[in-house]
Amino acid sequence: MKNDTITAPMGFSAGAAAAGIKVAKKLDVGVLVAENVCSAAAVFTRNRFCGAPVIVGREHVRSGKLQAIVVNSGCSNVATGNRGIDDARTMCRRVAERIGAKETDVLPASTGVIGRFLPMDKVLKGIDEAIARLSPSAKAGRDFATAILTTDTRMKQACERFRIGKTRYTVAGCCKGSGMIAPNMATMLAYLTTDVGISAAQLRPLLGVTAEHTFNRISVDECPSTSDTVAVMASGLAGKLETTSAIKTFAEVLRCVCEDLSYQIIADGEGATKVLEVKVQRAKTPADAHAAARAIAASPLVKTAVHGGDPNWGRIVQALGATDVAYKPEKVTVKLDRTVIFTKGAPAPRLDERKLAAIMKRKHVPITIDLGAGRASDRVLTCDLSREYITINADYHT
Amino acid sequence: MKNDTITAPMGFSAGAAAAGIKVAKKLDVGVLVAENVCSAAAVFTRNRFCGAPVIVGREHVRSGKLQAIVVNSGCSNVATGNRGIDDARTMCRRVAERIGAKETDVLPASTGVIGRFLPMDKVLKGIDEAIARLSPSAKAGRDFATAILTTDTRMKQACERFRIGKTRYTVAGCCKGSGMIAPNMATMLAYLTTDVGISAAQLRPLLGVTAEHTFNRISVDECPSTSDTVAVMASGLAGKLETTSAIKTFAEVLRCVCEDLSYQIIADGEGATKVLEVKVQRAKTPADAHAAARAIAASPLVKTAVHGGDPNWGRIVQALGATDVAYKPEKVTVKLDRTVIFTKGAPAPRLDERKLAAIMKRKHVPITIDLGAGRASDRVLTCDLSREYITINADYHT
Repeated sequence: MKNDTITAPMGFSAGAAAAGIKVAKKLDVGVLVAENVCSAAAVFTRNRFCGAPVIVGREHVRSGKLQAIVVNSGCSNVATGNRGIDDARTMCRRVAERIGAKETDVLPASTGVIGRFLPMDKVLKGIDEAIARLSPSAKAGRDFATAILTTDTRMKQACERFRIGKTRYTVAGCCKGSGMIAPNMATMLAYLTTDVGISAAQLRPLLGVTAEHTFNRISVDECPSTSDTVAVMASGLAGKLETTSAIKTFAEVLRCVCEDLSYQIIADGEGATKVLEVKVQRAKTPADAHAAARAIAASPLVKTAVHGGDPNWGRIVQALGATDVAYKPEKVTVKLDRTVIFTKGAPAPRLDERKLAAIMKRKHVPITIDLGAGRASDRVLTCDLSREYITINADYHT
Repeated sequence: MKNDTITAPMGFSAGAAAAGIKVAKKLDVGVLVAENVCSAAAVFTRNRFCGAPVIVGREHVRSGKLQAIVVNSGCSNVATGNRGIDDARTMCRRVAERIGAKETDVLPASTGVIGRFLPMDKVLKGIDEAIARLSPSAKAGRDFATAILTTDTRMKQACERFRIGKTRYTVAGCCKGSGMIAPNMATMLAYLTTDVGISAAQLRPLLGVTAEHTFNRISVDECPSTSDTVAVMASGLAGKLETTSAIKTFAEVLRCVCEDLSYQIIADGEGATKVLEVKVQRAKTPADAHAAARAIAASPLVKTAVHGGDPNWGRIVQALGATDVAYKPEKVTVKLDRTVIFTKGAPAPRLDERKLAAIMKRKHVPITIDLGAGRASDRVLTCDLSREYITINADYHT
């Protein structure tokens, strides 16, 4: 079977272990290791109570190099003061010792409940076990993708292969959601591997732009997490990207993989049964386009209407009305899929409510808002808001 | 029985009718009429897709005078273009004709589904019936308070009596919630009556300040409505407020009544089972105090934790971390009731999770965040987020 996991690009191995941090017997420690030191870049949450692993990770990735990533789920090591930072460093040191790398070439991450200290005995035992199982196999890739999950109901992976001249390259990734998702510069945890040869100086801006248009355009609950991390490692084993056009091709593939992963996060948002795509067109500025799309995607009233399959489009107008983006109300047009529902300040004539309800009941509901105020456009993905979201979040901690 | 309704102050009568706009046989048209033309003030939503009655109401109240208020529930007359504005004017004209007042001394309001035209035949018939039943009785007051409800589970009224020298005055009010509640300058619908004698020039700033600290500090779902209106009518029949100190006393009573009504809106928020009070202290600026309190009160993760009675306080820190208010993370202290749970960047030592869980299970959950950054403070009230909120909002329209 073809390997379409995070270990698909040349030079990567993964391993995972069930260390008892999350729930007994569930994989909760993952290690991703490269044969060689890779060019690397990462973007992190802008939440000011960011986790200890984010603080340490920022420090480590500054060199533009990484050889390994270590992650645990079940406890996020956030709001844990100096002891938390020490714990994150200890995780990196243990991986470095075991694989013969530098501590500062290891990126740490933790995800789960905020405000608890890591059970370090379990974590270190888990790291040792995961390293003992390191393998470039598809199974090892899937185990890693599983070990990083929390309330997710399924693993999230993407893989693209492309060719430049005669050289074949691979870009792969895996990520987790699925609550506290409104990334600001990145999302919960997403890891990307590739075998292209590219410098960190080239990789860094590429990842920034890509995350901005993919992971930063999704929202489950409009709550920016304290642990968001997107990291990419490029082993270079398939060959260097020699031309600007080659880098452009790689950038496009990277974006495809990130879009695929972002969509998977939303489709598996906590309690989600549907994806809502909010497109804004003809905004005055790109910031306006983003703000308008996000306001609608963040509205619990819009999200519950989508959940109920109810074409209660007045709530779209309400959410837009509460923003301060530039537009004249009478120039705004709202479409559900391709059907105009609101135009010139009033409901479109001869609305067929049954047809609208049928669109609202689909698995993917597309809403377009034309602001008639300029040329900028943007798009935000979100999911519906269901009783299941409440059930998950009313009982998550205890 | 003492009259503690909107008709308690001298000079006010109310009437209501079941016109079939909402559900068969439920009161859905209310009329409040003063004997004389009153000093009046009102604050309205800042939502830019505000309803037609808000547009007409702003125009009418500019004179500082009102003699009547007419409200229907079941249809909000929002996003209905010029036809909607004509309909709102027609409602005022009908009341004016029937009671012998000026059309511009009538304040209109409509609440319910957005994006539908009013069934004007039913509305006008309802107005005629409500006027035929006008009475200063407590029953009439309660009927009016009932006629303005939508998804509310109970009516919301408040009444305070006070004395200045030998003169007795009364301030009364009623309001509705209970979804799309995150008032920005006002809330859904709140009506206040009083028999104090006060000019509109004095009443206007008083109402503005009062609404800012009461109705503008509550949130059910952080969705600012298109119909928010708070209006006050002062008949003057009990006697003029002659001194600055008398006006100050009145202002305090007005604030008590508005706080009482605001609390009732939150306690009856859609699907609410508890009230969460978020206090922020020692913020650098008043705007920071408000922003921090609101960010926490708006978080679906905090609200679901409160619903589950789960002391998952990490979510409070997460919500604060996502704002850009001024503070140093290590100077922030978070308290649940009087128990410190987070301080100096880490969990407080010796946390008693059972005690915390017991506080979280109360009907009123108080959270205090000390930012250690200045002297400003603020407070926002919200409710928990329950499965019932989803049930109500997934099926509201159809």
